Amino acid sequence: MSRFFSQKYANLTPYTPGEQPQERTYLKLNTNESPFPPSPMAQSLARQAAGILQLYSDPVCRTLTKVAAETFDIAENEIIFTNSSDETLNFAFMAFCDSAHPAVFPDVTYGFYPVFAALNHIPYTQIPLCEDFTVRVEDYLGVGGTIFLANPNAPTGIALTRSQIAQIAAANPDNVVVVDEAYVDFGAESAVGLFREHPNLLVIQTFSKSRSMAGGRLGFAIADAALIRDLNTIKYSTNPYSVNRMTMAAGIGALADDAYFRKNCAEIARVRRMTAQRLRELGFRMTDSTANFLFAAHARMGGEALYLALKERGVLVRHFETPRLRDFNRITIGSEEQMETFLRILAQILEEHA
Amino acid sequence: MSRFFSQKYANLTPYTPGEQPQERTYLKLNTNESPFPPSPMAQSLARQAAGILQLYSDPVCRTLTKVAAETFDIAENEIIFTNSSDETLNFAFMAFCDSAHPAVFPDVTYGFYPVFAALNHIPYTQIPLCEDFTVRVEDYLGVGGTIFLANPNAPTGIALTRSQIAQIAAANPDNVVVVDEAYVDFGAESAVGLFREHPNLLVIQTFSKSRSMAGGRLGFAIADAALIRDLNTIKYSTNPYSVNRMTMAAGIGALADDAYFRKNCAEIARVRRMTAQRLRELGFRMTDSTANFLFAAHARMGGEALYLALKERGVLVRHFETPRLRDFNRITIGSEEQMETFLRILAQILEEHA
Repeated sequence: MSRFFSQKYANLTPYTPGEQPQERTYLKLNTNESPFPPSPMAQSLARQAAGILQLYSDPVCRTLTKVAAETFDIAENEIIFTNSSDETLNFAFMAFCDSAHPAVFPDVTYGFYPVFAALNHIPYTQIPLCEDFTVRVEDYLGVGGTIFLANPNAPTGIALTRSQIAQIAAANPDNVVVVDEAYVDFGAESAVGLFREHPNLLVIQTFSKSRSMAGGRLGFAIADAALIRDLNTIKYSTNPYSVNRMTMAAGIGALADDAYFRKNCAEIARVRRMTAQRLRELGFRMTDSTANFLFAAHARMGGEALYLALKERGVLVRHFETPRLRDFNRITIGSEEQMETFLRILAQILEEHA
Repeated sequence: MSRFFSQKYANLTPYTPGEQPQERTYLKLNTNESPFPPSPMAQSLARQAAGILQLYSDPVCRTLTKVAAETFDIAENEIIFTNSSDETLNFAFMAFCDSAHPAVFPDVTYGFYPVFAALNHIPYTQIPLCEDFTVRVEDYLGVGGTIFLANPNAPTGIALTRSQIAQIAAANPDNVVVVDEAYVDFGAESAVGLFREHPNLLVIQTFSKSRSMAGGRLGFAIADAALIRDLNTIKYSTNPYSVNRMTMAAGIGALADDAYFRKNCAEIARVRRMTAQRLRELGFRMTDSTANFLFAAHARMGGEALYLALKERGVLVRHFETPRLRDFNRITIGSEEQMETFLRILAQILEEHA
């Protein structure tokens, strides 16, 4: 850091994004991207918007909000759009956490939560997952802090049910419960429908995965209008126009093309089941993932060794070098063809290490 | 605010963006947008990118950085790209200000500076402009704080020279001097060339105005590599992928098409001079603006009355209801045709109020 850098961030360790190597073309199963392009409708609207970039984007995202309100059956003041769900998450840490309202989240979850907490000087508690990587609901009842739960969780893919989320929200009436549903569309239950009963519930979603827009950067939160108003106070004090015209247009198209969205989600779920079955046959154990990835450890071969062997052969998966996770790798579900390639290479590696 | 909102933001008053009315089509001369579409090269690259949004954008903006490094004759680690220059500005407030390093800026300037300061709980001092709205350089020598200077300033359009900026940077060696050059390309001198001599100088620019990408959201800062590294620490702890694929592609095209950029800047400067001359003939006094707007007050008609009369006739300009500014309106320079329409309507209004 330079001698000008504020002491208040002297100990800040930034988030490490997944590898995006440039020197070689990999089969990328490491960042949970969709194998499918965005909906043709999303592409076409984004292309139109590229011609009028000289005009500011609409900070209140009027049209996108209207379409989303219909899609999710909510009012227009019950949703906020942001530049990715990372931005929404940061706003939630800012708005709903402080020294009197520390953050609470599992020890194994999205790696950005501790960074957001550190950035905002918010104390936090990490609650250990059970031995089998599940969240123990009882651990989150009346914790006296702002709860962040990725559901399904990352990198395990394991989801709580909607009624478990409701139970946690009900047991923490004086604290906000943030449910980060980045991966919910591939098979878990969404908590979106619960916020009227639970005005402390904030549900965050993203267009990155199930709507094939990781490179477009569009996230949103759905909650009671009062919570959304708080997030807007932060947004309008930070970067009011953070959603650009092209992304906003693509978002409208992605929501409008519901059939495409459903087809892709169903296909990912089908290929996930197929891949899981084949991995079991190859000697892997896995968590019960409802996300667009699997979290798998091999009986014989260590996580890092497998990660490196795959990388050498042109396949990237995500490896985490922490004690609880190091036997595992997180494997993104791509297209059926991609997974067949992956499984073929994987079988070769295991044979060579037999 | 909700009962969950953190007390630390209880007094936060967000920034008020310029009006973007939806109910009627206005001649919009109120938000300093370019009348020209983005470069055909920018449009074409953005459209291509719309087809591969399923893949994350490159957080380090490799290709864009390479092209920019050539454009500005700097090294690749001397620039950072962000989601708009508002994001860069917020990062600069975060990184380089705290209670020991308060922010210092003119009393009349970009209205977002006090909001960024409040958001980050940074004390700030506002130094009054001279009677004629110029910045008195002497006021900024050894101020003991982090200086923010919009240059040209907003909404006055008045610019300091490069050597005046150098003088301020040299006189504050232990503090960062941020020069916000959102409007520099229309006729003022850029301080980009100064940072090697002044490692405390941070120059911020945007693609919004001179490169016709307000709706694309792309900003950047150029400075000594140590300062850029600090800003990256903040970026990677906030929203690493904040520049989406389409905007990044458009940015590459906008930089590559230098001829288009220069032609548009020259045309805006020409139309500004023409408009200023005609306004003088209509009884206006004006600051000496080198930006893509004029800041004008009429001898007979008050600023608000004029703003309202123009709005009624379908022309939007920006009015600021503060004591020092209320006689004036900020008028964006559009195309020659747009300005002729504006001047015709304005002449009618003045005649009716004669």
